[in-house]
Amino acid sequence: MKLKNDLFLRAARGEAVERPPVWLMRQAGRILPQYRALRGKLSGFKELVETPHLAAEVTIQPIDELGVDAAIIFSDILVIPEAMGLPYQMVEAKGPHFPRTIGSANDINNLNAGESAAEELQYVFDAVKITKQELDGRVPLIGFCGAPWTILCYMVEGGGSKTFSKARKFLYQEPELAHQLLSQITETSIAYLKKKIAAGVDLVQIFDSWAGILPTKHYQEFALPYIAKMCEAIQEVPKTVFSKGAWTSLEAISATDCNVVGIDWNTDPSIVRAKLGDEKVVQGNLDPCLLYAGSQEIKEHTLSMIEGFGGKHIVNLGHGVYPDTPLDNVKVFVDTVKGFAY
Amino acid sequence: MKLKNDLFLRAARGEAVERPPVWLMRQAGRILPQYRALRGKLSGFKELVETPHLAAEVTIQPIDELGVDAAIIFSDILVIPEAMGLPYQMVEAKGPHFPRTIGSANDINNLNAGESAAEELQYVFDAVKITKQELDGRVPLIGFCGAPWTILCYMVEGGGSKTFSKARKFLYQEPELAHQLLSQITETSIAYLKKKIAAGVDLVQIFDSWAGILPTKHYQEFALPYIAKMCEAIQEVPKTVFSKGAWTSLEAISATDCNVVGIDWNTDPSIVRAKLGDEKVVQGNLDPCLLYAGSQEIKEHTLSMIEGFGGKHIVNLGHGVYPDTPLDNVKVFVDTVKGFAY
Repeated sequence: MKLKNDLFLRAARGEAVERPPVWLMRQAGRILPQYRALRGKLSGFKELVETPHLAAEVTIQPIDELGVDAAIIFSDILVIPEAMGLPYQMVEAKGPHFPRTIGSANDINNLNAGESAAEELQYVFDAVKITKQELDGRVPLIGFCGAPWTILCYMVEGGGSKTFSKARKFLYQEPELAHQLLSQITETSIAYLKKKIAAGVDLVQIFDSWAGILPTKHYQEFALPYIAKMCEAIQEVPKTVFSKGAWTSLEAISATDCNVVGIDWNTDPSIVRAKLGDEKVVQGNLDPCLLYAGSQEIKEHTLSMIEGFGGKHIVNLGHGVYPDTPLDNVKVFVDTVKGFAY
Repeated sequence: MKLKNDLFLRAARGEAVERPPVWLMRQAGRILPQYRALRGKLSGFKELVETPHLAAEVTIQPIDELGVDAAIIFSDILVIPEAMGLPYQMVEAKGPHFPRTIGSANDINNLNAGESAAEELQYVFDAVKITKQELDGRVPLIGFCGAPWTILCYMVEGGGSKTFSKARKFLYQEPELAHQLLSQITETSIAYLKKKIAAGVDLVQIFDSWAGILPTKHYQEFALPYIAKMCEAIQEVPKTVFSKGAWTSLEAISATDCNVVGIDWNTDPSIVRAKLGDEKVVQGNLDPCLLYAGSQEIKEHTLSMIEGFGGKHIVNLGHGVYPDTPLDNVKVFVDTVKGFAY
């Protein structure tokens, strides 16, 4: 099906565009009243993730409500560890919890991996198919997964953490096991993304949420090579890599076979351009807290960011939108970008 | 009293030294069996902070046990908000909680600030005096406080947070009130540090634990100017500034009137030297997780970090030592540094 609005894909491929496209990480979520209404009727977050027509419904809500230039399939990066054999619970107001975790060679050998693990996630591929049908070509659909290091964090730690010191300890104490686990996650994630692409997604984004807690050397040994491998394996669609906080490795990320580099809100556009040059496509990076401010300030900061990047830019926040952000402020942000012309 | 070991102070002043001095952030704490034994007998963390002879005792424990080159007075950055009128509780396994927080001009006007607030903290000055007496000149004593932005975080947010979005929202919504509050915290902190110096501390360190969650522009508007003001106001002793995660502003931090720049573990020494040059004294920056590894790996990484900085360097971790770090590994780290010669 031909896309009616392919601005996002043209920008991701580095083509000249009339204005930067705009979408928000976590746009399908609690900022929308229609999401909260639906969520309130369900048993929990995972019911939404695992029920294809509901996942499709919330994926499309921000397209209707905000008019953003891309949809991102409603899902969770933690479906991968679950498909590999570590089920998780999403505990209200606390976050994910894995009753079983990885600590030994035996734990790793017992995991499912690759194609057969990816096949467990048919509900995601179904959600993608339904979404594509219902989107009817209005905007492109983004598929995503976690970066292998970030997935390892949860598999070893068993949940969220301020320091992920258990996961980081694993890198020092069991570097070979860590590489073995990272390889298995990588294979599974590649198989998973390829199935998502077959089901219809137009671009894939790799989220490395915990990149920023690694020293540079560990990021370059345990995180980046697996991301690079994924980017090489995926040639069907453009790829975005968002390694949050990995500022010391921005150039190295840019040098992988990715089309777009995600940028967090801490990094000024001028610094990004000084590191990556003017030709690399970047995505980001407004401070999500700016959307608590007044309209005038939102407009000014948004335009100044667009000018700061100076083209080859997909507008987004530098992090997922915070759930209590006023919807009207999100609209000011989106409309400011849509009213801009290069 | 003349110091028997003034290596740390000579290094902080940028003098040529025979080897880098070494100490650890949070060295007085749970890594030491004698700390855990004492702590187990008390009602809570605050009893330790507020009882001068006990604070002195735990301050000196790592000097006896580890042979580090500096002591740091056992205390908490949150004594400042408390002295200004916001009492806090330290909730076991959860962290600090402030029953009252700052949200309005009225809240700020009701605060105590400056000299009269600092006077509330006599128990800290008493702890410093006792410690100096009992140290008997063995090593220098470090005094510290939080940076104004980090203290504002707790005063507005009311406790710890992954995003401190309430505190950051305050910067966008109430920038003038934020500056007013930051000024009051700054005045109080300067008065407090001066009293600590009068009581005997040999160097002061400013901890900006939440610097890294700010966009560059906000760091330079709301965080750095107040740190710079503190550094200018304190001329009696050398000053260390540790703005964790503020990598985009390392050069600007270095340009304040501070003697030493603290570096977090995410930043490779080569990047630090490329930004700051070879003459600025830096402190840091081993990954605290390295101390979970084997002796050989600890030695190698420690020496490679020392070589990476190439002098003008005070050895430390890039963050506080984790409470469950094996004591023997901490000793390997300290002894590796003490066995090194430039």
